[in-house]
Amino acid sequence: MSFEITDILLEEIKVHIRNEDDKILLELFEDVHHADVAEILDEVNWDEALYLLRLLDSETTSEALMELDDDVRERLLDSLTPKEIAEEIEEMDTDDAVDAIAELDSAIQEAVIEQIEDEEHKADIREMLQYDEDSAGGLMAKELIRVKETWTVAGCVREMRRQAEEVTRVHSIYVVTKEDVLIGRLSLKDLLTSDTKTKISEIYIPKVDSVHVNDDGEDVAKLMQKYDLEAIPVVDDEKKLLGRITIDDIVDFIRDEAKEDYQLAAGITQEVEADDSIIELTRARLPWLFLGLIGGVGAATIMGGFEDILEDYALLFFYTPLIAAMAGNVGVQSSAIIVQGLANDDVKGSISNRLLKEMALAALNGLLLGLALFAFTALWYRNEPDSLHTALAISISLFAVIIMAGIIGTFIPLFLNKRGIDPAIATGPFITTSNDIFGILIYFWIAKLILF
Amino acid sequence: MSFEITDILLEEIKVHIRNEDDKILLELFEDVHHADVAEILDEVNWDEALYLLRLLDSETTSEALMELDDDVRERLLDSLTPKEIAEEIEEMDTDDAVDAIAELDSAIQEAVIEQIEDEEHKADIREMLQYDEDSAGGLMAKELIRVKETWTVAGCVREMRRQAEEVTRVHSIYVVTKEDVLIGRLSLKDLLTSDTKTKISEIYIPKVDSVHVNDDGEDVAKLMQKYDLEAIPVVDDEKKLLGRITIDDIVDFIRDEAKEDYQLAAGITQEVEADDSIIELTRARLPWLFLGLIGGVGAATIMGGFEDILEDYALLFFYTPLIAAMAGNVGVQSSAIIVQGLANDDVKGSISNRLLKEMALAALNGLLLGLALFAFTALWYRNEPDSLHTALAISISLFAVIIMAGIIGTFIPLFLNKRGIDPAIATGPFITTSNDIFGILIYFWIAKLILF
Repeated sequence: MSFEITDILLEEIKVHIRNEDDKILLELFEDVHHADVAEILDEVNWDEALYLLRLLDSETTSEALMELDDDVRERLLDSLTPKEIAEEIEEMDTDDAVDAIAELDSAIQEAVIEQIEDEEHKADIREMLQYDEDSAGGLMAKELIRVKETWTVAGCVREMRRQAEEVTRVHSIYVVTKEDVLIGRLSLKDLLTSDTKTKISEIYIPKVDSVHVNDDGEDVAKLMQKYDLEAIPVVDDEKKLLGRITIDDIVDFIRDEAKEDYQLAAGITQEVEADDSIIELTRARLPWLFLGLIGGVGAATIMGGFEDILEDYALLFFYTPLIAAMAGNVGVQSSAIIVQGLANDDVKGSISNRLLKEMALAALNGLLLGLALFAFTALWYRNEPDSLHTALAISISLFAVIIMAGIIGTFIPLFLNKRGIDPAIATGPFITTSNDIFGILIYFWIAKLILF
Repeated sequence: MSFEITDILLEEIKVHIRNEDDKILLELFEDVHHADVAEILDEVNWDEALYLLRLLDSETTSEALMELDDDVRERLLDSLTPKEIAEEIEEMDTDDAVDAIAELDSAIQEAVIEQIEDEEHKADIREMLQYDEDSAGGLMAKELIRVKETWTVAGCVREMRRQAEEVTRVHSIYVVTKEDVLIGRLSLKDLLTSDTKTKISEIYIPKVDSVHVNDDGEDVAKLMQKYDLEAIPVVDDEKKLLGRITIDDIVDFIRDEAKEDYQLAAGITQEVEADDSIIELTRARLPWLFLGLIGGVGAATIMGGFEDILEDYALLFFYTPLIAAMAGNVGVQSSAIIVQGLANDDVKGSISNRLLKEMALAALNGLLLGLALFAFTALWYRNEPDSLHTALAISISLFAVIIMAGIIGTFIPLFLNKRGIDPAIATGPFITTSNDIFGILIYFWIAKLILF
């Protein structure tokens, strides 16, 4: 099924744009899927993209625009007049339209909305702009098929045909009262097989799941995943049907959340792409690096405090990067498992039980790693004075540091979660840095205790 | 809409199981969604779960089983007889059935398949067991609605009604030739609005996307996401319709992939949950920790090689954890951005351009961090001999190490990707460890150059 965007095709498109061969271009783009149009807009240069955007019909370009990265879309739309933007918005589903408008400069938002010709669409957009972006209201679209319980099957089919023109995918037919209160849904099978004079109230299914317009988007995503729902209606306080959320929006939501968590774990504070500018990338990366710098200075200061044993036990100092690395790695592992467990609601039971388990786990790992390190250092430095003693000090300290790192890595995300803070922030550099400092402190304390 | 699984409810269920109040239990579970049944099976103890599994009808339990974690399901099924397992399998969609059977001990797989009564289901399962788990064939289900082009609308509706009983969700109606070759799809709207005597061949849409049964699952996931497809048909070499893949399977696929990448970044080698046993968790965590240990020993050996400057420049040694931490953090950031970019097909252009950009970025970050470190160390140690000189050496080395870390973090995933190896493996401990070693080596080299 794949449509390939080759360099040759791109070159051809560029030439046609240069020659303003509008007719050829329109023919060329006739059967191209909007996702592919988006890819082409992304590959050509700025002026070429604008040329295509103005040439192609809004139905194609509006969908292509929604496939682009937020910042590319924002910049492209900013180059259009409010009238031109409104034409694109006109063709979008309400949820996309609201997303696109929300990204615009607040100064021109009103001007764009004013230019929308379809009064119903305009009113829907105004209503939806009020909902929080991450709430059910912010995720839903107004487009759906609703039928009144008082209608007959024949009337219903007629109405559906009209409504279906505005709805990309049908998913479900929702049944409402005269006052628009959601009371059930209709199965296509029943609709197909009932006599055309049957009343909807006789054949609808009164069981229907719904979410409230103010519900948190993440909760809606979990619900839809848990119950394998492809669409869920959104209602207000009076159970009036406001819109519906479809699974494709949730797929994007899940992907974005996963990306964000992954980047947080890697020490990147805001969503960036490989192709972003160096300034944007620096802004996203520098904060955690700076935190790491402070941690390193802390570790250096601690080591300075143990300078008196430097002459006799230089070996201890050589093993500080190892200690810091192990403390960091164990901490990141522990926190990653807890953060994922929390995200999937898998982490139950008391915090103290978790910590006990993590201690046992860290003790086992620490024992194995400590033994390996002892075997190596005892052998490698066997000709140096006091080598066995030093090897023992390093290994036992490593054991203690690993246990501490596991506890900190488990405790911090659990603690943040209890406080209502996203625990994902606790993975990566945050844990690494705190474990570096504590690790080196504990290491020298214990080593000194053993050696003196 | 939420059904709450409270402690009180669980206690009640446990009491009823103890008293073998089957009638009450059956009533209690009557309207419970299978996802909630799964949660209850997860919360009660082993014998209680088995009791419920045997008591409740297979239609409910088979779906609940598919919601459980793989290992829990596997253990539960292992406690049942082949006959009992076959009853569960009988109620599953073919894709779930095959997943469940593939998890069983190979010794009893055949015995279970033998016990399946529905011959068509049995044949489908045997066919599907041949496909690779991660291919389109492994992801698809055989259940779908197919109509022949020669049928009339009336015959089609009649057939659909029959087929729909086996299909949970309709999504699309596929049109095939007499030889079962996929030639198009049918819109419900057209079906609803055409005369009952119309031939399907007159109203079907001849444009339909499909994937080949051997296509890679990840590619199918990308395709369905790109084109916002909710279902896609799967065909063989002769374009014969074999099955279809639905978006809910892809959601699970995306989630699993994201989880795996996240865990790799955190240094966890196999999929684990917070609730897994200490042995399982150790097996997943120890390999990378061991790698970290080797890296640390390498760093210590390098530092031992610079022992001759220890007496005069102890400060250099105090800053090794800082150097190692910064090298690790920068490397993880760089690799995470590249790994994500590769996963989303965002990374285009030549490797050398990427490396140049990363060098510029690292140089900017390194300059800012180096200046900060210089300011601090020059001030903090201002009373020590040769402090300005040492501060300069540490800061310039940090600058060099950051550039190196960025290059390694960018190069390794790009290189692995070119070689066809999953670049996600390059994040986390792998990058951290190699950067630790190289970082400390470069740090001492440059510092020595400056100081002597």
